[in-house]
Amino acid sequence: MPELRKDPVVGRWVIIATERARRPGNFIDRTYLPNQTDPRDCPYCHLTERPIYQHKGGISVVPFRGSFLAIENTLQRKTHGLYDILNTFGVHEVVVETSEHIDNMSDLTLPQIQGVFETYANRMEDLQNDENLMFITAYKNFGSAAGSRLIEHARSHIMSTPVNPQRFKDKLSGARKYFKTHRSCVYCDLIRQELKEKSRVILESEHFICFIPFAARYLFEIWIVPKKHNCDFYKSVKGVEADLAMVMKNVLNKCKAGLEEPAYNYIINTAPFRRKGLSPERWNTIDQDFHWHIELTPRLTQLAGFEKGTGFYICAIAPEMMAEYLRGIEV
Amino acid sequence: MPELRKDPVVGRWVIIATERARRPGNFIDRTYLPNQTDPRDCPYCHLTERPIYQHKGGISVVPFRGSFLAIENTLQRKTHGLYDILNTFGVHEVVVETSEHIDNMSDLTLPQIQGVFETYANRMEDLQNDENLMFITAYKNFGSAAGSRLIEHARSHIMSTPVNPQRFKDKLSGARKYFKTHRSCVYCDLIRQELKEKSRVILESEHFICFIPFAARYLFEIWIVPKKHNCDFYKSVKGVEADLAMVMKNVLNKCKAGLEEPAYNYIINTAPFRRKGLSPERWNTIDQDFHWHIELTPRLTQLAGFEKGTGFYICAIAPEMMAEYLRGIEV
Repeated sequence: MPELRKDPVVGRWVIIATERARRPGNFIDRTYLPNQTDPRDCPYCHLTERPIYQHKGGISVVPFRGSFLAIENTLQRKTHGLYDILNTFGVHEVVVETSEHIDNMSDLTLPQIQGVFETYANRMEDLQNDENLMFITAYKNFGSAAGSRLIEHARSHIMSTPVNPQRFKDKLSGARKYFKTHRSCVYCDLIRQELKEKSRVILESEHFICFIPFAARYLFEIWIVPKKHNCDFYKSVKGVEADLAMVMKNVLNKCKAGLEEPAYNYIINTAPFRRKGLSPERWNTIDQDFHWHIELTPRLTQLAGFEKGTGFYICAIAPEMMAEYLRGIEV
Repeated sequence: MPELRKDPVVGRWVIIATERARRPGNFIDRTYLPNQTDPRDCPYCHLTERPIYQHKGGISVVPFRGSFLAIENTLQRKTHGLYDILNTFGVHEVVVETSEHIDNMSDLTLPQIQGVFETYANRMEDLQNDENLMFITAYKNFGSAAGSRLIEHARSHIMSTPVNPQRFKDKLSGARKYFKTHRSCVYCDLIRQELKEKSRVILESEHFICFIPFAARYLFEIWIVPKKHNCDFYKSVKGVEADLAMVMKNVLNKCKAGLEEPAYNYIINTAPFRRKGLSPERWNTIDQDFHWHIELTPRLTQLAGFEKGTGFYICAIAPEMMAEYLRGIEV
């Protein structure tokens, strides 16, 4: 019997199919085709841009070519009747995760993955000095089904803008609403329940919990959440980067082995820089009510289209069954 | 120079590319492949279900086979720790728009299209008697790129549930917030500005305006909005169905001729039934602050993936240019 389940943060109802008949295998098709680019033709093997930042582990950060955002601009707001317009002030950088022509982050070493998280944190720390920036994120598109261009060389993105995207606004306001009612962080409460029930947990480390959310939108949607409460990724990841790298490599390898090396996205959800555009009242509470976390979304075959029409997501396998499946994959 | 534009209803920022160099033609690929099913094998040519409703124009409404929602259920709410669960109480019906094996609604006659809108209104009027239902919509998925199954026989869907999907909640609360500040309906203000500027208008009829929204998320996203303020489709469409059919057929034919007969979705956004689940205060204001409308979204080739990673939509052609292009298509 399917269920309607409500995401406790944003309040989104999702239709979850819970029949045992729907096994993960029914929905897995190969969504990533391995590297076709000759390393000699790979622009990430031969960077021509001067790096903005270099990490000792061989990681380089360069401007994103063809970016829609430009930090050289001066932030300009205007209105046109009913409508608000900003120029495309902002930052879009590419994190080239290795100088070798390796495609999947899962094939990087633990120190390399740790270095990638250190790079994100260092860039964010630097960018928070620009007083016009508010939203900041690091994300990865792996494989064309996840929106990456065809050249596969392990890389991810850092983006920062003066405004929050809608999906992130929903998270912030949902977490805030929960805090107002319960006087506790929704993510902290959620971790407590997930660790107690265990049925949706994929793995747990000293500092992180990795699980399928109760109201998953996508097949094998995965959340990685730090156990310790903090709203800022770049401040609180310090000292636990190695543990996070271990969790990420482990779960990426489980996906690779169990889900036919899928295309995937991940995104780091971290609190906006607390300044302009956010009401001063909000600056003071965000430390308490938001909790940084990573969403990792393999891109698998999905029952298509229902969401496009109706606005309701359907998840065709029960989250408990997806977690059980990934727990059972030895890597 | 691209721009960040804010949707005045939900507050969503969208990156809009405004260079003249990006012409519509660059993004048009055939996303719909015409009818392959032999009418003798088409389940919509030979309905076996007993119709729930029949319209004199040859339109039949039948239950959706394999629906996740069932009206036979009793609505049950439960909580599980932090989490809210509902059983999948609800209605999912298919509107078979003609007994002939015709695929695109654009090829139906004006009286047939009028009959489809009359059918939606009649079904909604009937369903509002079920006191457990709150959200109601009618929508269409045309072509597999829009999420339709492969059998192409003109049909659409009616869905009703006890909860609002997230995207619709955002609209309702955005419209409400605007009303609180401005004491006027955001859609009414928006119509006024669009009719004055004309640059984003595709066509205008006696009762409707059809335009590309200022902060379009998708290429050739189109809104059809009634000029007269009313929050309920099924109440206020009465007497103007013929005009709406003319607008719909006209714009679908423009898409067909100008965009290589694309796959598309449309969805009717109409106020929820005012009862349980909505605070009583809300029942009284929704008449004033919400305004029913149709979103029509052709599914074209899009610069993929950016939204998946970042949560920001990118629209690669300026709305003004898209409107100019469709205005120029003679049908």
